[in-house]
Amino acid sequence: MGIIVQKFGGTSVADPQKIHNVAKAVIREKENGNDVVVVVSAMGHTTDYLIKLAKEVTSNPNSREMDMLLSTGEQVSIALLAMAIQSHGYKAISMNGQQVGIITECIHSKARIVDIKTEKLQKNLKEGNIIVVAGFQGVTPEGEITTLGRGGSDTSAVAIAAALNADRCDIYTDVEGVYATDPRIVPNIQKTDIISYEEMLELARVGANVLHPRSVETAKQFQVPLRVRSSFKLDNLGTLIIGVENMEIYKPVAGVAADSSQVRILLANLPDIPGTAADVFGALAKNNISVDMIIQSLANNGTNSIAFTIDEDDLDNALKILEDVKKEVKAGDILIDKDIAKVSIVGAGMVDRPGIAADMFRSLAENNINIKMISTSEIKISCLVEKDNAAPAIKALCKEFGLESSEMAVVKGDLPNV
Amino acid sequence: MGIIVQKFGGTSVADPQKIHNVAKAVIREKENGNDVVVVVSAMGHTTDYLIKLAKEVTSNPNSREMDMLLSTGEQVSIALLAMAIQSHGYKAISMNGQQVGIITECIHSKARIVDIKTEKLQKNLKEGNIIVVAGFQGVTPEGEITTLGRGGSDTSAVAIAAALNADRCDIYTDVEGVYATDPRIVPNIQKTDIISYEEMLELARVGANVLHPRSVETAKQFQVPLRVRSSFKLDNLGTLIIGVENMEIYKPVAGVAADSSQVRILLANLPDIPGTAADVFGALAKNNISVDMIIQSLANNGTNSIAFTIDEDDLDNALKILEDVKKEVKAGDILIDKDIAKVSIVGAGMVDRPGIAADMFRSLAENNINIKMISTSEIKISCLVEKDNAAPAIKALCKEFGLESSEMAVVKGDLPNV
Repeated sequence: MGIIVQKFGGTSVADPQKIHNVAKAVIREKENGNDVVVVVSAMGHTTDYLIKLAKEVTSNPNSREMDMLLSTGEQVSIALLAMAIQSHGYKAISMNGQQVGIITECIHSKARIVDIKTEKLQKNLKEGNIIVVAGFQGVTPEGEITTLGRGGSDTSAVAIAAALNADRCDIYTDVEGVYATDPRIVPNIQKTDIISYEEMLELARVGANVLHPRSVETAKQFQVPLRVRSSFKLDNLGTLIIGVENMEIYKPVAGVAADSSQVRILLANLPDIPGTAADVFGALAKNNISVDMIIQSLANNGTNSIAFTIDEDDLDNALKILEDVKKEVKAGDILIDKDIAKVSIVGAGMVDRPGIAADMFRSLAENNINIKMISTSEIKISCLVEKDNAAPAIKALCKEFGLESSEMAVVKGDLPNV
Repeated sequence: MGIIVQKFGGTSVADPQKIHNVAKAVIREKENGNDVVVVVSAMGHTTDYLIKLAKEVTSNPNSREMDMLLSTGEQVSIALLAMAIQSHGYKAISMNGQQVGIITECIHSKARIVDIKTEKLQKNLKEGNIIVVAGFQGVTPEGEITTLGRGGSDTSAVAIAAALNADRCDIYTDVEGVYATDPRIVPNIQKTDIISYEEMLELARVGANVLHPRSVETAKQFQVPLRVRSSFKLDNLGTLIIGVENMEIYKPVAGVAADSSQVRILLANLPDIPGTAADVFGALAKNNISVDMIIQSLANNGTNSIAFTIDEDDLDNALKILEDVKKEVKAGDILIDKDIAKVSIVGAGMVDRPGIAADMFRSLAENNINIKMISTSEIKISCLVEKDNAAPAIKALCKEFGLESSEMAVVKGDLPNV
């Protein structure tokens, strides 16, 4: 009938027994009459093991060689999964990123996909094969092996689904779907049946770890219907992620999420002249460091200060760069605050309902949670709080916006056939 | 000055410390003023581990997927070795079989190299890189990953040396060079300084495990000077292997070797009509089973019997094929003898000295060793004996032909500059 792309993460293929379970889930979809392409990550802790090996060889491994090294992890998985599927009597063939033609930019360790060749995929599907593709990896037009960075395998799966014009992309994971917030923090939270790309994107960006934002962005761009579902409960349909235009009624707040992996950097006493902010963020961007929240304020003495947050992993690099920039733009001190967590509420309905922001700030205040920074977008409000306040903030906000029960959105008209 | 290709096996790169030792040996050659290409195998027991994983997934893994799986082993090694070389301040770049363009036939698990592209190698050398190449693997013109089978990494190294017109190919190993026989059997045997391709080939073929015959054959074909040398004693020059035309004086017998990995198959009561032998060996060849010794004899009743030896690993396959052939050619029983070892004497000088064969048979007889089968070539005489008789036979023959001391060959004229 159609084409289904499935994706299984490292935990799902951690040992031969689990690989056979995945094989069964793949065959089940094939038996439904679909052509199946399955994308897998490296087995269990393989990637961590390879990183450890590299670190034992050198404290500062070259990123090209890291990609060469890490891409082997997925290649092991695809070979074993193809064997497992074959052992159940089905035709299967594995393909690494180079063989498919998953073309990326030449930025090692966090390349973006620029093109996916479909000729060989189509040919192998036509021959009746289940195709097992290595996630997380690609190849530059010059034949250099790249990896896609965080969330890479999800992105591989969605991009392949888009390239093949697949009917659906199923992301199998160890949870049953998407929740309005982290079930470890609010245990009575219930799975969401359907959510829009936009909401999922904001939830993902602020730390809901189910899907990496890159994969959701790609799905949104190419309108690939996504399902997040459990690899242990195959009958459970999980959460469907589709375009907001297919949804009619939604709560103003669809989810609450927290991210405590960031640090705040404050550049004090910047001269108030045009181009200073551009110099600072231009230098960071040039070094592939993503900046999240940014606040600039004018002090009494006629100087600016800029506060912004970045991923903690990027801190060392950022500081090196900022020391140079500091001299250039004649800035004052660089101050670091690691005791932060970003708590966000997300909802496509927010734009129509005034007062949501006020409700959020009041709820936090009532719980004695101090707000260090605020940033807003059309469908998201984020507050920076102290790390210890993240969990109490989430609980308070879930209560405030009635997220403890299920059903946060219903679908407009008929469900799309996915 | 020139181009040196080096090859290090799995034991040499078994852990990060050993990888750094290899890096030092590589850098030493670079410091000598040479361009260096280094070929490595998978780390230590990686290949065994991957085979075990595959066997846990299925008892009969598909050979294409096995190649996909096993080729990751070398890819891990090359990335780590490149990192190690870089950490000592030298430019290095790793390349897998696909990236180099090591083009092979499409016979999975034992492909032969048909072409090696040198453009990217030359370009990377020109840029001052030490190139680290994955041994044992190649790629078909269609982009399928293949492995070269036994002795694959040695063959990769020699083939690359030939393609680059390298000055020398150094095979680093855990022994100090080539011996006239196995030092575990004749402890006072001494390392050979120089030996011809032809003698090495016969020694390798009959079980001297230092070099796989494929690599020696390739070296001979392209006249690549080979050195077998110790990865632990870098100052030791090991054994130089060159063309016999560069050697003047040699002992009639250069080495003695035994191979106990074969089995003997006897096809009895074959009809004495033309084409029978062709049918039998044609069927085996079609299935990539190599046959070694062959003896055909006519019985009194007008039927033939054919006895031949094959590698023990091929036995199951061979028996399946022979059962079919048996019906076709109306043969009698198929008898198997596993209790065999092939003991051979090898020497380029044999052809000029009559009586060597007689000396060999007499020496074995004096030691009460029964001969089951005999085969001869221009520079080799092989006798099949019972497995238990292999070691006593080797000792007797080393004594008989004066191989316990060193110096088995001297060089004609000046030593070639290798």
